[in-house]
Amino acid sequence: MSNVKQFTKALDKLNFENMYDGDFLLTWEKTDDEVKAVFLVADALRHLRENNISSKIFKSGLGVSLFRDNSTRTRFSFGSACNLLGLAVQDLDEGKSQIAHGETVRETANMISFMADVIGIRDDMYIGKGNTYMREVVEAVTLGNEAGVLEQKPTLVNLQCDIDHPTQCMADMLHVIHEIGGSDDIDEAIANLKGKKVAMTWAYSPSYGKPLSVPQGVIGLFTRFGMDVTLAHPKGYEVMDEVAAVAKANCEASGAKFTVTNDMAEAFKDADVVYPKSWAPFSAMEKRTNLYAEGDSDGIKALEKVLLAQNAEHKDWECTEELMALTKDGKALYMHCLPADITGVSCDEGEVEASVFDRYRDPLYKEASFKPYIIAAMIFLAKVKDPQKVLKALESKGKDRWIGKE
Amino acid sequence: MSNVKQFTKALDKLNFENMYDGDFLLTWEKTDDEVKAVFLVADALRHLRENNISSKIFKSGLGVSLFRDNSTRTRFSFGSACNLLGLAVQDLDEGKSQIAHGETVRETANMISFMADVIGIRDDMYIGKGNTYMREVVEAVTLGNEAGVLEQKPTLVNLQCDIDHPTQCMADMLHVIHEIGGSDDIDEAIANLKGKKVAMTWAYSPSYGKPLSVPQGVIGLFTRFGMDVTLAHPKGYEVMDEVAAVAKANCEASGAKFTVTNDMAEAFKDADVVYPKSWAPFSAMEKRTNLYAEGDSDGIKALEKVLLAQNAEHKDWECTEELMALTKDGKALYMHCLPADITGVSCDEGEVEASVFDRYRDPLYKEASFKPYIIAAMIFLAKVKDPQKVLKALESKGKDRWIGKE
Amino acid sequence: MSNVKQFTKALDKLNFENMYDGDFLLTWEKTDDEVKAVFLVADALRHLRENNISSKIFKSGLGVSLFRDNSTRTRFSFGSACNLLGLAVQDLDEGKSQIAHGETVRETANMISFMADVIGIRDDMYIGKGNTYMREVVEAVTLGNEAGVLEQKPTLVNLQCDIDHPTQCMADMLHVIHEIGGSDDIDEAIANLKGKKVAMTWAYSPSYGKPLSVPQGVIGLFTRFGMDVTLAHPKGYEVMDEVAAVAKANCEASGAKFTVTNDMAEAFKDADVVYPKSWAPFSAMEKRTNLYAEGDSDGIKALEKVLLAQNAEHKDWECTEELMALTKDGKALYMHCLPADITGVSCDEGEVEASVFDRYRDPLYKEASFKPYIIAAMIFLAKVKDPQKVLKALESKGKDRWIGKE
Repeated sequence: MSNVKQFTKALDKLNFENMYDGDFLLTWEKTDDEVKAVFLVADALRHLRENNISSKIFKSGLGVSLFRDNSTRTRFSFGSACNLLGLAVQDLDEGKSQIAHGETVRETANMISFMADVIGIRDDMYIGKGNTYMREVVEAVTLGNEAGVLEQKPTLVNLQCDIDHPTQCMADMLHVIHEIGGSDDIDEAIANLKGKKVAMTWAYSPSYGKPLSVPQGVIGLFTRFGMDVTLAHPKGYEVMDEVAAVAKANCEASGAKFTVTNDMAEAFKDADVVYPKSWAPFSAMEKRTNLYAEGDSDGIKALEKVLLAQNAEHKDWECTEELMALTKDGKALYMHCLPADITGVSCDEGEVEASVFDRYRDPLYKEASFKPYIIAAMIFLAKVKDPQKVLKALESKGKDRWIGKE
Repeated sequence: MSNVKQFTKALDKLNFENMYDGDFLLTWEKTDDEVKAVFLVADALRHLRENNISSKIFKSGLGVSLFRDNSTRTRFSFGSACNLLGLAVQDLDEGKSQIAHGETVRETANMISFMADVIGIRDDMYIGKGNTYMREVVEAVTLGNEAGVLEQKPTLVNLQCDIDHPTQCMADMLHVIHEIGGSDDIDEAIANLKGKKVAMTWAYSPSYGKPLSVPQGVIGLFTRFGMDVTLAHPKGYEVMDEVAAVAKANCEASGAKFTVTNDMAEAFKDADVVYPKSWAPFSAMEKRTNLYAEGDSDGIKALEKVLLAQNAEHKDWECTEELMALTKDGKALYMHCLPADITGVSCDEGEVEASVFDRYRDPLYKEASFKPYIIAAMIFLAKVKDPQKVLKALESKGKDRWIGKE
Repeated sequence: MSNVKQFTKALDKLNFENMYDGDFLLTWEKTDDEVKAVFLVADALRHLRENNISSKIFKSGLGVSLFRDNSTRTRFSFGSACNLLGLAVQDLDEGKSQIAHGETVRETANMISFMADVIGIRDDMYIGKGNTYMREVVEAVTLGNEAGVLEQKPTLVNLQCDIDHPTQCMADMLHVIHEIGGSDDIDEAIANLKGKKVAMTWAYSPSYGKPLSVPQGVIGLFTRFGMDVTLAHPKGYEVMDEVAAVAKANCEASGAKFTVTNDMAEAFKDADVVYPKSWAPFSAMEKRTNLYAEGDSDGIKALEKVLLAQNAEHKDWECTEELMALTKDGKALYMHCLPADITGVSCDEGEVEASVFDRYRDPLYKEASFKPYIIAAMIFLAKVKDPQKVLKALESKGKDRWIGKE
């Protein structure tokens, strides 16, 4: 695309005015138009950067990040998105301690937000807690803004919670649109996805307790685009009921199929997209959350043993060349949120055979590369009242992000 | 106020030219005009931000922060102030180890200051050390600048020392001016404070060793504004003699009263402002400093026990509804630097009854919200030779801090 | 100098076009013209800053830092350089764990680089690893850029590896040019260095395992300028053969002498510059690297004991007043990368006598102050296609780095 017009024209057709001054917590709280607007703005921001055009909309301001878990990728994606828009990042390091509630959340949320335009939170460890905590923060800063404590209401971006991983899954979906959609026109590209088959499958990992937010996010989002989504996992690795219900409802609306199976090969059969990835059983995560709440460290250790043993019963859930051969023309798009457990590379036995991973390395990195732009787009749409106008204004300022570029 | 003129006109009447290229260590080293200038610039910067006008005076430059103690609030306030003015924050993490002296201070101060325009230090743990350390840093960078090592002399802002907590107490005082002063005109507002009564009182906390810098800062500053200040604490919780002397001298100059009592109710009686907050006895802190210096960890543990027991004798020093009812019309402004020990919320028995805290939550958050602007004003006045001119210039640039705002 | 013209005119005479889009790993991989260009741009950037002219060439973008070792000085120098050019710093904190290889390096390098314009790495702990790791990172991001994963190829700056410490030694050399060269004209100044004698000598330290990158960097760089370089150390403290070979080859090209001796006094005799500094024996570092790789912590402890005992045999290797008196007119320029082990100040017996250090404090700080500008110059030359044009353009924008400066 030679200029931003193609993006702004597509945006003109959408209704996303409710995103202004909003937050981004779960993809299924957003309309199809709103989701599409995020994709378009993400692509537009990437287009600007590729053309050395600055997307700085803030002269000053902070993006506050709060990570309950170690995170290099998401941390850098959030930092990159903030930087792209002109915000400095300030980390709130509360450690991995059990999450604060009530008064403390309310107070801390305000104390860190005096000059915060954005708050990014990753809190995926405890079932029933992460998303709830994010909503408490939103409420606190909304009240703080109304009371004149805060000059602005910071926008909250969910960088992964116990339910959804919207920045990851939106990046994944944008990757699918570009790789499988086969058109620069987003409406055409999405239309082309109709009837395509996606296999979101469990895979064996020698570690345990991986969050459910990725498979849940994928089935909650991908089912909106008319694609037939098959969720495959061994018995006992069920995802949250409420998210499965979202996937079903999406499919009913889009006329697609949502299938659950305990057979990896069945999921791979004729699939256009495969996303084999380990996760922990929902019920086990719920149990672990309670054990942590009770401070029962013996119980946690015992649960860990059980879970590792349970995983080890399913070492055959590996994305092999053999399985890949079952996919559409043997050429399904292999996806992963990274890092993957690669057999013989990062572990003895893992999620994926080394030769499969090798073959898809560039597309996998490309998939990941959409994340900072997705986050930036979520912020942009919450902060810019008239995105089309501002995108055009940015473009008209010229190629000056990096002075001295050849 | 509709524009910055009201602030610049008020600044025109003040003499604060010595603040340029200076530092901010203790409020009582500043003249009344200089203190007032900080309030005016803080309000002006807040006014600009509320109106989406950028206050960036630096295109590049660093604000170096050095915290001897964990600190979320002050860290974010300093970070916010730097960001508002265009400085990036770089943390110097020396850990909580005993403070370096002599050669090391001199060297480190220069090594971190090559592009530092500001250094913010919090160092309140050791009696007789924190403020001294800050002066060593100021001397080192002044010499470094003179020797051509540093292109600029960074401004030091005291973010809390063993003696004073100027950024906190200035924020507290600005809050009082706005809440009690009853006028947009700062001279009128301050005149209206004459004869008002402030109760700075000790309160029970189940933790120990809280710094004295807040009560000392409050009595050292609030006494300058013609307000009658009563300092109340149990016997044994005396503050530093030199600061009590500052408070007395201030009162003599302003014609107000500085009273010390061991009766919390007496302090609350007819008070317009109450600031009930725990602190450690000065002599105990002095003892602890020496024990740390000697590396006597058994002595430190023993002292801890003694101090907790001593605190526990004064659990009745709680800011209750009953005590609040004694204040002027039962409606004194309740203040706290946060976080407070709230009875039944953050601890079993603490500094304040939950219903009192609840009632004042918004004003408490507002009180805290002045801190980043106070810090920014201290920096601004040390870095801008003609503040009125620059404030007007910033305003004339228009509403562009956040492009896309509704 | 009154304007940047003097720098741009000197740059006009040099051929450094290969630096664009490049990296900076070892000084001896750069031509004389390229090294000189770094010095000129460093001086030009310092000149701009001294004159309150902004050198911001990036409106947004990240400088990613990766430190395998604690580092205050280099961290601040890198942060300052990035800030000067408009980049925000994002730290990648991988801890001090053994370095990742292969797939992990490739993946991480891309995941942190979506908006990275620069990557700065310090990795000097393990012989044969640090520099190799940096090259793996360069390869990974080059491939990532070619595959469309990264919009730009970040420039890698070696902030210290197992072989060289180019940012330190370039700063050291620029200091020598200014202190000994005796001319504002860089060609004249360098010509004046011909025949001057440099003593790079080992010195006793009560700690062990200090990296070899400084002495290696110094002999690998200083030998290019026609100066006679004497490397002095006790037997057993030999540096890497390949770097000694570089020094020899440089001397052959420049007509100077490279001498190795085991006599500190011989090195100091008639020296114009002395650089007495402790380092670990290369063979011991190699051994330690293998012990770490084998996870042999007993072996590491045993080696530590041996090394400390070995050091202690050479306590007479101290830079004393007596030794300084042997130097040219007793006035050699004393250099150190800091912090130095100062006898009676930072340790009982160390690298340098306190009175010597005291006398050279200002020049030592000045030496260090070149480092952020050297790093900025390395980045500038890798990122700016036409440095002369951009330097002139920056100057013409006027004195606006710090608005409000007197």
